[in-house]
Amino acid sequence: MPARLILAALLFTSGISCSQLGLCKVAPKRMVGIFGGMGPEATANLYAEIVRLTPAKEDQDHLPTVIYSRPQVPDRTKCIESGSREIVPYIQEGVRRLERMGASLIAIPCNTVHYYHADMQKAVRVPVLNMITETVDAVEKRHPRCKVVGLLASNGTVRSKLYEKAFEARGIRVVYPDAACQQTCVMNAVYSIKAGGDKRRQADLLARAADDVTRKGAQVIVLGCTEIPLAFDSSRTRLPVVNATEVLALAAIREYQRGAP
Amino acid sequence: MPARLILAALLFTSGISCSQLGLCKVAPKRMVGIFGGMGPEATANLYAEIVRLTPAKEDQDHLPTVIYSRPQVPDRTKCIESGSREIVPYIQEGVRRLERMGASLIAIPCNTVHYYHADMQKAVRVPVLNMITETVDAVEKRHPRCKVVGLLASNGTVRSKLYEKAFEARGIRVVYPDAACQQTCVMNAVYSIKAGGDKRRQADLLARAADDVTRKGAQVIVLGCTEIPLAFDSSRTRLPVVNATEVLALAAIREYQRGAP
Repeated sequence: MPARLILAALLFTSGISCSQLGLCKVAPKRMVGIFGGMGPEATANLYAEIVRLTPAKEDQDHLPTVIYSRPQVPDRTKCIESGSREIVPYIQEGVRRLERMGASLIAIPCNTVHYYHADMQKAVRVPVLNMITETVDAVEKRHPRCKVVGLLASNGTVRSKLYEKAFEARGIRVVYPDAACQQTCVMNAVYSIKAGGDKRRQADLLARAADDVTRKGAQVIVLGCTEIPLAFDSSRTRLPVVNATEVLALAAIREYQRGAP
Repeated sequence: MPARLILAALLFTSGISCSQLGLCKVAPKRMVGIFGGMGPEATANLYAEIVRLTPAKEDQDHLPTVIYSRPQVPDRTKCIESGSREIVPYIQEGVRRLERMGASLIAIPCNTVHYYHADMQKAVRVPVLNMITETVDAVEKRHPRCKVVGLLASNGTVRSKLYEKAFEARGIRVVYPDAACQQTCVMNAVYSIKAGGDKRRQADLLARAADDVTRKGAQVIVLGCTEIPLAFDSSRTRLPVVNATEVLALAAIREYQRGAP
């Protein structure tokens, strides 16, 4: 049986024996992997979204999942702004540990860290989903007439033009809040969410940022930072909203099912 | 350096090399482990509770955590009722995988599966927290005059007297909803939560169960099934409520900090 031989060879080269993991009996054949901690609440939220969006009538219908939450990964925005590479060993250790734990695909609930997507992908053999291109795809598919998106995202994501380049390649322009609003509304809300601050105040700040991009001609608002949907109130904008965390959850379910036996 | 030698010996016996995991550089020294999937939403909820209850001002203050969510573990209530041991390989594989992933303690967000606590603990060297005794401790500490608790829990937890024996050892009596209410209110709410059903209806069902144990003299209500706090509305009972999931989150934080260097 060649499949078994390949499995045995993989286990041998990875240094983990079948009996050590109890793989032979009841271990899942495929698993969703989540590399989280950036931030931790956003990680719980991505997993909750995967659970919510998986068609299931009972526990057993849900997807086997491994999550590695490593909040000590250095601040992504600061690393991008300073050009520091100190983050790379952390994120490579993260995806490698998940692959070793049995993940057959990896989703990462942090838009900003996708600046380093290539560094993570080259550290593992399993696919690392790309939240940025998934979200651009979702905007195109759900709002085919959209020509201008308003992006609410971290300074790191904004300044590295992570979304801007991907949207421009599809002929979609990105507008941002003014520099002052980006700092006093978006970034203050994001850091307040990470610190467990007042959700009502965060929602007020984010509503102001949404108004700002609406005035600039946005036709769709993209929540391009995983903290933002934890406080954003969609009822306070008249524009349609695309939440990158929800898009990533749907992509993880789709890719898991695609590879299922 | 003996510590390094011991680490090397441990890594050697576990079959995982230092460089494979990148342990030498940036891997966390200790991690909270969560064995979940029973059910999946309750697993996201436990992790969210740990995040909420950890004193933190920024991402990096949070605890490194590994979560293995394995929703295919057979139904706990059914196994207990039929006396089947088919569940044991699943739960032992679960805790072993977490230990191998680097967990230094294991929390399991499912009250009912604690019927098999000894089977899980004997499969690993790291401590498996006991949600049942932690919850009994919390009731004693927070409500020292309480002599009667009202338990909302699954049939498996009720019939195996998992909580009843632990409370009686402290001189606290347990009262339950009537058999009909246990089935039509508690179990229907639990399975509806697992199926992603209507939260409002679930809250109504659980409020009726809370009224039932209140009439029987309960002084404190214990939410002894991890699905229940996902829908239970504490404002609809006049009694104080002890939520076993929150107790487990606090215990995981405490045990992580106790072992921290």
